[in-house]
Amino acid sequence: MNEFRTEKDSLGEVRVPRDAWYGAQTARAVSNFPISGRAPDKDFVLAHVRIKLAAARANCQPGWLPELKRDAIVAACEQILAGAHLDQFVVDRFQAGAGTSHNMNSNEVIANLANVALGGEKGRYSPVNPNDDVNMGQSTNDTIPTAIRLAVLAKLPRLVAAVRGMAGEFSRLAEREKDTVKSGRTHLQDAVPTTLGQEFDGYAWTLARCAAALEAVRPALCEIGLGGSAAGTGLNTSPDYPDRVAAELAALTGESIRAGQLVAQMQSMNDLARLSGEIRNLALELTRISNDLRLLASGPRTGLGEIQLPPVQPGSSIMPGKVNPVMFEMLNQVCFQVLGQDAAVSYMVQAGQLELNVMMPALGSALFDAMDWLTNAIDAATEKNLKGIVANRERCAFFIHQSVALATLLNTRIGYMEAAEVAKESEKTGRPVRDIVAQRALMDAAEFDALVLAAAHGVGSGGGGG
Amino acid sequence: MNEFRTEKDSLGEVRVPRDAWYGAQTARAVSNFPISGRAPDKDFVLAHVRIKLAAARANCQPGWLPELKRDAIVAACEQILAGAHLDQFVVDRFQAGAGTSHNMNSNEVIANLANVALGGEKGRYSPVNPNDDVNMGQSTNDTIPTAIRLAVLAKLPRLVAAVRGMAGEFSRLAEREKDTVKSGRTHLQDAVPTTLGQEFDGYAWTLARCAAALEAVRPALCEIGLGGSAAGTGLNTSPDYPDRVAAELAALTGESIRAGQLVAQMQSMNDLARLSGEIRNLALELTRISNDLRLLASGPRTGLGEIQLPPVQPGSSIMPGKVNPVMFEMLNQVCFQVLGQDAAVSYMVQAGQLELNVMMPALGSALFDAMDWLTNAIDAATEKNLKGIVANRERCAFFIHQSVALATLLNTRIGYMEAAEVAKESEKTGRPVRDIVAQRALMDAAEFDALVLAAAHGVGSGGGGG
Amino acid sequence: MNEFRTEKDSLGEVRVPRDAWYGAQTARAVSNFPISGRAPDKDFVLAHVRIKLAAARANCQPGWLPELKRDAIVAACEQILAGAHLDQFVVDRFQAGAGTSHNMNSNEVIANLANVALGGEKGRYSPVNPNDDVNMGQSTNDTIPTAIRLAVLAKLPRLVAAVRGMAGEFSRLAEREKDTVKSGRTHLQDAVPTTLGQEFDGYAWTLARCAAALEAVRPALCEIGLGGSAAGTGLNTSPDYPDRVAAELAALTGESIRAGQLVAQMQSMNDLARLSGEIRNLALELTRISNDLRLLASGPRTGLGEIQLPPVQPGSSIMPGKVNPVMFEMLNQVCFQVLGQDAAVSYMVQAGQLELNVMMPALGSALFDAMDWLTNAIDAATEKNLKGIVANRERCAFFIHQSVALATLLNTRIGYMEAAEVAKESEKTGRPVRDIVAQRALMDAAEFDALVLAAAHGVGSGGGGG
Amino acid sequence: MNEFRTEKDSLGEVRVPRDAWYGAQTARAVSNFPISGRAPDKDFVLAHVRIKLAAARANCQPGWLPELKRDAIVAACEQILAGAHLDQFVVDRFQAGAGTSHNMNSNEVIANLANVALGGEKGRYSPVNPNDDVNMGQSTNDTIPTAIRLAVLAKLPRLVAAVRGMAGEFSRLAEREKDTVKSGRTHLQDAVPTTLGQEFDGYAWTLARCAAALEAVRPALCEIGLGGSAAGTGLNTSPDYPDRVAAELAALTGESIRAGQLVAQMQSMNDLARLSGEIRNLALELTRISNDLRLLASGPRTGLGEIQLPPVQPGSSIMPGKVNPVMFEMLNQVCFQVLGQDAAVSYMVQAGQLELNVMMPALGSALFDAMDWLTNAIDAATEKNLKGIVANRERCAFFIHQSVALATLLNTRIGYMEAAEVAKESEKTGRPVRDIVAQRALMDAAEFDALVLAAAHGVGSGGGGG
Repeated sequence: MNEFRTEKDSLGEVRVPRDAWYGAQTARAVSNFPISGRAPDKDFVLAHVRIKLAAARANCQPGWLPELKRDAIVAACEQILAGAHLDQFVVDRFQAGAGTSHNMNSNEVIANLANVALGGEKGRYSPVNPNDDVNMGQSTNDTIPTAIRLAVLAKLPRLVAAVRGMAGEFSRLAEREKDTVKSGRTHLQDAVPTTLGQEFDGYAWTLARCAAALEAVRPALCEIGLGGSAAGTGLNTSPDYPDRVAAELAALTGESIRAGQLVAQMQSMNDLARLSGEIRNLALELTRISNDLRLLASGPRTGLGEIQLPPVQPGSSIMPGKVNPVMFEMLNQVCFQVLGQDAAVSYMVQAGQLELNVMMPALGSALFDAMDWLTNAIDAATEKNLKGIVANRERCAFFIHQSVALATLLNTRIGYMEAAEVAKESEKTGRPVRDIVAQRALMDAAEFDALVLAAAHGVGSGGGGG
Repeated sequence: MNEFRTEKDSLGEVRVPRDAWYGAQTARAVSNFPISGRAPDKDFVLAHVRIKLAAARANCQPGWLPELKRDAIVAACEQILAGAHLDQFVVDRFQAGAGTSHNMNSNEVIANLANVALGGEKGRYSPVNPNDDVNMGQSTNDTIPTAIRLAVLAKLPRLVAAVRGMAGEFSRLAEREKDTVKSGRTHLQDAVPTTLGQEFDGYAWTLARCAAALEAVRPALCEIGLGGSAAGTGLNTSPDYPDRVAAELAALTGESIRAGQLVAQMQSMNDLARLSGEIRNLALELTRISNDLRLLASGPRTGLGEIQLPPVQPGSSIMPGKVNPVMFEMLNQVCFQVLGQDAAVSYMVQAGQLELNVMMPALGSALFDAMDWLTNAIDAATEKNLKGIVANRERCAFFIHQSVALATLLNTRIGYMEAAEVAKESEKTGRPVRDIVAQRALMDAAEFDALVLAAAHGVGSGGGGG
Repeated sequence: MNEFRTEKDSLGEVRVPRDAWYGAQTARAVSNFPISGRAPDKDFVLAHVRIKLAAARANCQPGWLPELKRDAIVAACEQILAGAHLDQFVVDRFQAGAGTSHNMNSNEVIANLANVALGGEKGRYSPVNPNDDVNMGQSTNDTIPTAIRLAVLAKLPRLVAAVRGMAGEFSRLAEREKDTVKSGRTHLQDAVPTTLGQEFDGYAWTLARCAAALEAVRPALCEIGLGGSAAGTGLNTSPDYPDRVAAELAALTGESIRAGQLVAQMQSMNDLARLSGEIRNLALELTRISNDLRLLASGPRTGLGEIQLPPVQPGSSIMPGKVNPVMFEMLNQVCFQVLGQDAAVSYMVQAGQLELNVMMPALGSALFDAMDWLTNAIDAATEKNLKGIVANRERCAFFIHQSVALATLLNTRIGYMEAAEVAKESEKTGRPVRDIVAQRALMDAAEFDALVLAAAHGVGSGGGGG
Repeated sequence: MNEFRTEKDSLGEVRVPRDAWYGAQTARAVSNFPISGRAPDKDFVLAHVRIKLAAARANCQPGWLPELKRDAIVAACEQILAGAHLDQFVVDRFQAGAGTSHNMNSNEVIANLANVALGGEKGRYSPVNPNDDVNMGQSTNDTIPTAIRLAVLAKLPRLVAAVRGMAGEFSRLAEREKDTVKSGRTHLQDAVPTTLGQEFDGYAWTLARCAAALEAVRPALCEIGLGGSAAGTGLNTSPDYPDRVAAELAALTGESIRAGQLVAQMQSMNDLARLSGEIRNLALELTRISNDLRLLASGPRTGLGEIQLPPVQPGSSIMPGKVNPVMFEMLNQVCFQVLGQDAAVSYMVQAGQLELNVMMPALGSALFDAMDWLTNAIDAATEKNLKGIVANRERCAFFIHQSVALATLLNTRIGYMEAAEVAKESEKTGRPVRDIVAQRALMDAAEFDALVLAAAHGVGSGGGGG
């Protein structure tokens, strides 16, 4: 029995797996691009199918696409959107420039589904033609960038929710530890008193701001280039198509999709660069915060040990009893890879030429991975670790009384230069600043302790917000 | 005659050039950091002095700083702001973490100016003390990040104006060339008709959007951490200091300066990352646009030659008569260095630890250079080159009639597969699509030409805006 | 029927899929790290198993590991190396710092295989214990970086072969096109004559040099840190273990594996940075070369069109007859992602702290992907496209005679300033330099043509080598 | 009195400062490129002048350049090489693609110096013509990349010496602290014993390896493209010029300069990418090592405090007595900027097009700064800080006895699972492992202490070298 059927495209005959819903051009692409072995992102596949569905509706309204064909195309798309045939999207992440192969993969699968439903046969492409009907008024060049936008719009709320979840947890912990007085550290050196609550509040605040910054990219992402067709000029598009198809997509996705500047949409990946940049900015903060948590949790005996991260697995194959901050180490690693994705995106964004940026497929893929991996990593770190953080309050209290930087509390009374003498004596003798202050009759110990407490709580959260 | 005076700080005696307005700690820093030989950025120097001025006023209101001292400090600052003594800011761009050395440089210069004005002597630091008076309620840790913010706020309007200037020029050219029909090119291959106007309009639109994105960072940059002092907790600050000093700075700068979340302001460089990210996004677009212009101007004989960039200098030391697109080559180079600055900023942003990010001086410097160089480069490219662009309309017209992609205009009449046959015949024989179309009696030449014209103008600028 | 068995580790009980060959710690890791959904790299899995095998042999020699256990461990490893049970390596690419989870995955699978073979039971870990026996004298901290080295050593020859394959193809084409005279282009502007052969020869030469540079990293990669155990100090290792285990691995891999500086091997990822850097350098050249090929192939009518890349699939879903340079567009995209991988690697390399770099799992993964994807992409581009390149010799000849830069050939006769006059006249009038030269009686046309030919061939390949 | 003279080039008249040694094209460039305000790198200026000198000699040998002109050109060059007229090299770092402006700056200065020495007049360019004589057989396209190579060759030994100096200092300290037993830390968590000596030895070893890697790029850098002239084909070059001029440069520089593959030299910046990559690799290690030192020196009371960095300046404007690790903070900052330079270089390397990479001026500048700044930073950190490092041996000893990870020493006696029980008890109770071990009668305290000592010294430096 023959496992293949033969199809024909403008370059000649192609063997296609007999049962495949895709066709000749997809088969060519599978053979041309054996690169990463990774199938396309699922949100992207669905987004692209949504575009086909919306286009069929938009093209039917002015009478360009007959209702029979429209209905068949819409039904095929709805099947896929319901989860069927996802394994028929088979072209590698690294493929034809601009994503022609993925566009044809969608066109062929939908055409075959539609034709079979209409009593036709796979590979015959009649009555529904992949190029003339499924791709009517469309082009790789406008559907692929639009699909990338729709896919990241689908992912964005998940990422933002993850960031807000982590920020909320830091806020909760900040409230809980608002009286955990501890030594500040600047330059990693003893600094003036603060509280664990204030540190965590800082993290919460910054993460909330990153979430807001991500959200702020959304309106730009909602502008699409459908209707530009091949070169942004709208050749072969039906009347009012840009607005019609945008309205259909708005209805399908619940996002405020609207037609953008069609030429720029195709020339420029600027909006995606902006999204990638904000993800980068988030990853930089998460790197810093993860580093801080791992440092505060260092020890338990030979480090700072001011906090304890809940153990989630034995830490070492050789050192018994060791527990490592694996969840935040994992987050660190993901962040660094996300920074790599952003570097890749940057290179691809600048590589547009004249009417088109052909790097789109890999650009989309780099962004998709960055968003998914980061979302998962933040959620896992929050759930498995952040929620169970324990403050070692005695350890915090121990350090604060040791800190040489307490001499700073004397500045306004005796001036910087004299306070420096107290600090030096403490440093040299190892005696706490409190004792030296008492001995020099500058302040009694109780007064000094009260000063430390007051200093720790400070003025902190003066201002603004995310 | 002795060229040096001797001063003393908490580490001992230091030789200071006799005439220097700066003092011991600055002299130590000069000796410690012979790295780049580059003096600090001027906007940054002025911004930091503005902070000192504002702080003196804010500290006087509640009576912490005597009026005599305040007036002397303010007068000293105003001298510097008027342009005097800028050569006294002498610490290398790469210096003490967090910028302690620069902070002390300002403190010392201002103290010495104030004291001499009050009848004192350089290096005596009485009555005005650099730490207790000029630095009152302040710290390196809150004045340096604030000064960086003020400095970039000073530079931002210049950069935005440069971008808008270039965008405006592209708009003007787009209008002028709106009827210059030419071949689109996607994948660098013949594509459907467009106009030079539409291409330029796309550039204008994207640049306007980048300008808007830069502007959108401004509110975040206006939030400052003054009042956090050493660790964000506000130790040793006078009553209501954060709001008072912010109000003073708002008045001095004309920006909506306000107190931010003081802990986060010191921990996190997120707002500067955002700014750097938007500059990066702009540089990526400028890279693409410069590449496009150089490609469109390639030739004059062996390239596309659709536009001509005005010659500004002979192009070659060996090839007589050669004229190169040097202004946009320069812009390309600046953009690439700007991308490097952003990479450096990213590394520095993630390197904060606990209460502080000590990488601030280099972070600021990287941003300052990026902004200045990019502003200058955009302005120069616009003035010297963009404004004089000439379209080679005959060349554009020549290409459009050659393009094999004109077969696309037949899609809606005869379908993709048949149109492909026309395209193939054109490709093989070298005959224009128009002729084949006429020969096959699909359309007469005049009708076809009209179709090309209509196709070129397309639907273009459907949508949204910056 | 119960689908799970219960195991215990130092943190308590864990449910493990009943049939799994892995155990408790792997199961914990699967639950902890649902990040990318990507299983470990196959070369890495095999490399790590090879280490376990080599260690068992090395530990048996001095009598630390009984022969019975050694044989069982070796047999288990050999099964895996033969391709069995690869689906039992299930921990996500983003996981515990340093790769503890993967190390335990290997330890558990091997222990279970060994014990079952010895008549024991999955999950019982007797007589062969995953920590005490399979991991004897080892640690995550020395086996994971060694496994990364072995994995990249396995991939390196494939990458080098791909690069050499492409270089060889360019050499062949260079020889074939050595007489295809064409215009050089510098600054994308008309420049003096050259040949297509010389251009291709330059590519061949540079790629050969990149291959040599990749090869030059090999000796450093052959140094391993096995024997360092937990902190590079060799705690709990058997006598002469570093040399013994290196010798076993040398025998298993055919590479010149030897013990390196054990502390540095764990602290520093410098050798891997070097490898990543050379891959980056290669990707930069491939980017440039791909860009050049796409530019030379631009058109067919509205571009340079000096070469033709063989069509491998229809180029457009909307523009019939369009053929795009998809193989090199794909290579461009892969190169940009590879540059992203290198950026990620850089961040991870600098993130080592004290005795260890915990970013190793993601660092390895980033490198593995970079190598695999680039190898596949180069091979595909070479086979599907480069081999079939056709030179459009008439087009090359057409351009050369048009080039204004031919005036340069007059320099040595009439000087730069006078030659510039000729160039200007050609530029202004559109007449070929040859005609103006003849008209001015500087040279007859035949003499000039001979000069062009001679100029094109030039001195070219003067020098050195890879 | 007129401050300007008027010169003429192929584009028309230009005003040149009356006293300037440079001429029209330099003046145009000064006006065209008001970008960074930074004059060219001095090593680069000298390198380019050396090329002019070498070319004059090489062109005289076969009789192309008369001896009179050669002598005048050589004398002019020698003046500059001796330090005169360096202020006449005035074109901005960001300038004409490929560096045409700098090449003409050199040509004009040398021509004017030569002509005035021969009794001529500035701006007259007779008898020595900047294009026909000083630039004879040369082009921007071959002299600029060669000058970049010569400039980095001049800088390389300084950088390597700085790295070796730091490595040597770490070696000295490693020897001195070879018996300073301390706790290892992996994942920042308590790990098995090591010595400070071993940590420092690891740093020394890695830095030595980086120095060797830098040295290994030297031979490639010694290959030059002189003789390629405009497009790598050698048009208008005198007989045997590539070898002759290389030999002259070898004599002038003491480096093994030789002619490379002339086409590739112009197309590809691969060798410079390799150099930049190795500098990047070094910066990544220095980042890590600086971070480690700052962490080990953290405190003095609230951190690890295992080492003390000598104070070089007061650490804070507000916290009296504070001393910060400013020299390594500075090194950190420089390293991050160097990583930015490498990112910029990468972008520029991939941007070559066809016969030429026009990004060369900025590419060179980015590398020059990276090398100079890093050299200076390493030297300063070594001299001012590393040399004076003090080990806090008591602190190290204190920590080692606290470490929970000492339970690992029991593995080979009682197995991982039982040892984990000891670790847990220590963790929970806070009692040292030694005491629990004694109590459980596993080992007496003295025996255990001996074990710790032995463990700390380990097997360490098994292997290879840089």
